[in-house]
Amino acid sequence: MGAKLPALLTLADLGEDALVARLLRGQPAGADVLTGPGDDCAVIGRPRDRRWQLLKTDCVIEHVHFAPDADPRRVGWKALCRAISDIAAMGGEPRHALITVAVPRTQPVAWLDGLYAGIAKAARKFGVGIVGGETARSPGAVFINVALTGEVERTRCVRRSGGRAGDALYVTGRLGGSLAGKHLDFTPRLAEARWLAAHFLPHAMMDLSDGLAADLQRLACASGCGYSIKSVPVTRGCKSAQAWNDGEDYELLFSIAERASLLLEREWQKAFPRLRLSRIGTLNQLTFGTQPACPPRGYDHFRQTL
Amino acid sequence: MGAKLPALLTLADLGEDALVARLLRGQPAGADVLTGPGDDCAVIGRPRDRRWQLLKTDCVIEHVHFAPDADPRRVGWKALCRAISDIAAMGGEPRHALITVAVPRTQPVAWLDGLYAGIAKAARKFGVGIVGGETARSPGAVFINVALTGEVERTRCVRRSGGRAGDALYVTGRLGGSLAGKHLDFTPRLAEARWLAAHFLPHAMMDLSDGLAADLQRLACASGCGYSIKSVPVTRGCKSAQAWNDGEDYELLFSIAERASLLLEREWQKAFPRLRLSRIGTLNQLTFGTQPACPPRGYDHFRQTL
Repeated sequence: MGAKLPALLTLADLGEDALVARLLRGQPAGADVLTGPGDDCAVIGRPRDRRWQLLKTDCVIEHVHFAPDADPRRVGWKALCRAISDIAAMGGEPRHALITVAVPRTQPVAWLDGLYAGIAKAARKFGVGIVGGETARSPGAVFINVALTGEVERTRCVRRSGGRAGDALYVTGRLGGSLAGKHLDFTPRLAEARWLAAHFLPHAMMDLSDGLAADLQRLACASGCGYSIKSVPVTRGCKSAQAWNDGEDYELLFSIAERASLLLEREWQKAFPRLRLSRIGTLNQLTFGTQPACPPRGYDHFRQTL
Repeated sequence: MGAKLPALLTLADLGEDALVARLLRGQPAGADVLTGPGDDCAVIGRPRDRRWQLLKTDCVIEHVHFAPDADPRRVGWKALCRAISDIAAMGGEPRHALITVAVPRTQPVAWLDGLYAGIAKAARKFGVGIVGGETARSPGAVFINVALTGEVERTRCVRRSGGRAGDALYVTGRLGGSLAGKHLDFTPRLAEARWLAAHFLPHAMMDLSDGLAADLQRLACASGCGYSIKSVPVTRGCKSAQAWNDGEDYELLFSIAERASLLLEREWQKAFPRLRLSRIGTLNQLTFGTQPACPPRGYDHFRQTL
């Protein structure tokens, strides 16, 4: 299981990405796996199938992703919409969800009713079937896991790794300040991502969950590119550092051939007049020594730079 | 979201089955759902497809499903094998798994290496591909969720609800005493369940996770039957009450036409000479007033009768 490390090394020393890479090294992949760990979703199917299946799992945890006094309906909405956002980021459509909830024995039933009302609201809005619900007792915090399947046409599947040097980089919406409330109320960019995949087929795409600083690094790294950033759309009342680091924006980050960028911007305005689309920069050749210094790090669960 | 209940009603008042039924009432089901919540797995597909997809999610939690000092390799084995056991109980084969792990920031990386080594061991043995691994920070206990897909031939899919009055009831192995160690080392009855589905097609089947008392009640209730029990195979050194109530046996409980029972017993001995198969009783007509008194309750996460 990876290189020998000091026995007392903890997660805070290693960080999230290095940890996941380490843990998944040497795991059996299985047949029909077109994309394994490391993208927004796993992609399952045979190379020539007309449609591929997408698989995603994601959790929200009390004290980490929501406060104990948060409205449970908003927590339920968030729990399902985070996973929908990942399906969207591959160009796909969500299908079926299974919910796991672990709660202390003293949790009021009314709280769980609220949670499931929020889940049902999101499920109806985005066409998801809730096909399973496990409950367990938690010795402490409330823990909610969502497993979500999706589908994507083979010709519309967008990974993180397809970015090319010279691509124009875009983000939807404005970044930063999610903790003011947006992190519980965001709208996954499902319609926008489907439209992009159908009409412009981005080379690379992902959703922004850990902040532009961390996630841009991931997209560029997966694509084997560097990047230069000119400007970032900042939520009103926020500072630039927040746009880079707060995380939980759930906007789309994508790259597209430079020559398509003018047409994209014009068509986007017609299709989504109320959602800003911002050109933030360019992917470029990764040449040792020329990569700009890393921007401030985004949110890392174990390093907690927030 | 169900009937109006006192606001301070807690999970301990309601119990697990009533809670899940309550929460899932009114949830959107979605297209292609052949079996939704309430069986070992959800079944997805169209009625005439040759193969159907199975979906399962399941969690293990520190202090609830394993002790803090448990060998992490055994915890990883258990986490994946619990879900494999549910796929098996539908007559299916497991395919792809996504793992969610939430751990405190101080968790040694070596512990997680051990956990994933146990997951990999089970994945290789039972032909599962690990296609995703999310990590998050837990504010307290370690939490591991497994989302698992599977497949089953349409003609071999076995639900809980197909039992008929007059069916013979069987369990594999011996029941009780799982806490002595078996709960971390059990073998999901995948080969046995596949063999049963191929050669005898049980009318109803499920895996025993919460104890025979709770699970037999579920199978009988889903099948609209009552039952009478003659005897139960008890683990050496255990009492009868433990066989009914300890839970975490991960053996199969199934019903089959009485006329097939002699042939089944003979063929089973040839196919699985080292695993006991026990006739425990019979499903019968459910007539109001004649149902035998409920046996002692099995394990309920929220009532905690253990």
